[in-house]
Amino acid sequence: MDNAIRSKSNPIMRPIDITPSIPGMEIECLLNPGVFQFENKKWLLLRVAERPVQEPGKISFPIFNAEGFVEVLSFNEDDQDLDASDARIIKYKGKDYLTTLSHLRLVCSDDGEKFYEPEGYKPIIGKGILESFGIEDCRVATRADGFHLTYTMVSPYAVAVGYIFTKDWKSIERKGMMFPPHNKDCALFEESINGKYYALHRPSSPELGGNYIWIAESPDGLHWGNHKLLATTRKGMWDSARLGAGAAPIRTEKGWLEIYHGATEEHRYCLGLLLLDLDDPSIVVARSNKPIMEPIAKYEQEGFFGNVVFTNGHIVDGDKVSMYYGASDEVICKADFSIAELLKTLEN
Amino acid sequence: MDNAIRSKSNPIMRPIDITPSIPGMEIECLLNPGVFQFENKKWLLLRVAERPVQEPGKISFPIFNAEGFVEVLSFNEDDQDLDASDARIIKYKGKDYLTTLSHLRLVCSDDGEKFYEPEGYKPIIGKGILESFGIEDCRVATRADGFHLTYTMVSPYAVAVGYIFTKDWKSIERKGMMFPPHNKDCALFEESINGKYYALHRPSSPELGGNYIWIAESPDGLHWGNHKLLATTRKGMWDSARLGAGAAPIRTEKGWLEIYHGATEEHRYCLGLLLLDLDDPSIVVARSNKPIMEPIAKYEQEGFFGNVVFTNGHIVDGDKVSMYYGASDEVICKADFSIAELLKTLEN
Repeated sequence: MDNAIRSKSNPIMRPIDITPSIPGMEIECLLNPGVFQFENKKWLLLRVAERPVQEPGKISFPIFNAEGFVEVLSFNEDDQDLDASDARIIKYKGKDYLTTLSHLRLVCSDDGEKFYEPEGYKPIIGKGILESFGIEDCRVATRADGFHLTYTMVSPYAVAVGYIFTKDWKSIERKGMMFPPHNKDCALFEESINGKYYALHRPSSPELGGNYIWIAESPDGLHWGNHKLLATTRKGMWDSARLGAGAAPIRTEKGWLEIYHGATEEHRYCLGLLLLDLDDPSIVVARSNKPIMEPIAKYEQEGFFGNVVFTNGHIVDGDKVSMYYGASDEVICKADFSIAELLKTLEN
Repeated sequence: MDNAIRSKSNPIMRPIDITPSIPGMEIECLLNPGVFQFENKKWLLLRVAERPVQEPGKISFPIFNAEGFVEVLSFNEDDQDLDASDARIIKYKGKDYLTTLSHLRLVCSDDGEKFYEPEGYKPIIGKGILESFGIEDCRVATRADGFHLTYTMVSPYAVAVGYIFTKDWKSIERKGMMFPPHNKDCALFEESINGKYYALHRPSSPELGGNYIWIAESPDGLHWGNHKLLATTRKGMWDSARLGAGAAPIRTEKGWLEIYHGATEEHRYCLGLLLLDLDDPSIVVARSNKPIMEPIAKYEQEGFFGNVVFTNGHIVDGDKVSMYYGASDEVICKADFSIAELLKTLEN
């Protein structure tokens, strides 16, 4: 048992519920949506991972070419130079490719459980050489001036954090790379603290260091500095190999409450809590020893990449957090938490 | 033959020329100085790498402890858990340590070749948990308001870029972490372009990507964004495995001229050129196919870590660049270049 109250409708969205972005592609996975409210509806910004319909004996995967069009690379399954042992990555002649190409898709809902694709909204697709392997895991921070999107830019050159701003979801403003590689899991705070923007982010080190959560500050949301280490991995625990922020921290009277993911060396992904000082969020007030949510439902244990619960979006209504999450890197689910109960798990 | 006119006095400084910072330590290496002019003298900000005087049968190395004091860790040479096969890194039970601890030391000179330690100036020493393995390879950018130091912060948690400001070298102002891990080789431009600060930097990726030079911009020198990829490694060439900026780019009529280092998989370090657009330095106008300088002198081929020429400091006087560099990660050397001749190497 954990602290999550899972929706009885889980999974609330599956790959079959969405149409591929172009003919000849199939949707392998729906992943980790950004979440927001807009025009009296609840919205998800889904990560949609597609690949070409596979032919027998072949392994095919998509990339954006220099002109911005999807191009399919295809190899024989028994090619000696091919290593397809990981469901997510293909290695060919020492180079890494992704098995799927991700873009972002908008769906909306009246009740927060039955989502549909509304007319008149375009998907958000990778653009330029730094997004030629797609864009992934977009957080949506709702601030007074509009929606601030932070997402993972993926290419052969870098895995890094991109930034998009929109007011109306009809036109978007691309604001470039916010954090240089290797970086992902960037969650913006939805209000300024002492006049500064804050962001949680997750740089990774090839040597000396690891996959830790850091915090940075900014005068304008575009330029970032004064990076501080917030939380490291913990040997032998549920967050021993890597951890990263989820959605925007939630303001509570005890501090900023952040639901984050942690994973073990075996790639088992759970969720836990960080509580940050209200006035100076670089100070960690408390941290979960045990996860608040573990992959225990069948749809969380079996799928494209099993034993994963991963979140980067929620809606807060009073004491209730309605959290949307990716399960087994394949389907979208929903679970509710009580903020009071979450805070209680952090006592001691 | 290369384009460098080496000083006949090379090496101009050796470890024996400097006294250890505390008793019981010995200086292993002098490395990669930042360079500036101040009070009618030429100054180097040396990286000084120290380790405990080694006892027979033991391997000892220093770290800063949480209280900011140097603590010595010591192991038996034949300890099965110890891997000391790299001169720079010790692995013990899966953890990485450095064989030496680096700090920064000021020396000055009238003629630019005979340097001495002046009285009244303190070394710059690592501070806090993010510098517990020391500080390294400091660039000094001279701007109208004073001296801007960008250096490598090293700890078990991160390799990243730190920022210090000083006007008088007597008191320094620590301005925190400028670029998050994994990052080093940060060179600030010495003047603003269209009202913006610019910096070259070198993030590294554990997957998808490499050790490439990027450029970022800032409104204030403290907060950075809009990161763009400037130059990648080139297979089969002298900069096939990694590359990184040297000192501040030099303004020429053809563009910003940057002397950068590149290394092969065999860790042979050479120097080459990037020429960047004067008005928009994220545009590469030209790049060296062949190095302008290679490790060909004996002191560049043999030492603590041989086959290395590495620079992050110079003084420009008209057409002449007086470049200071680390040779074989052990001694400090000087070489001159003609800017006109360097620009000529970039013509096809």
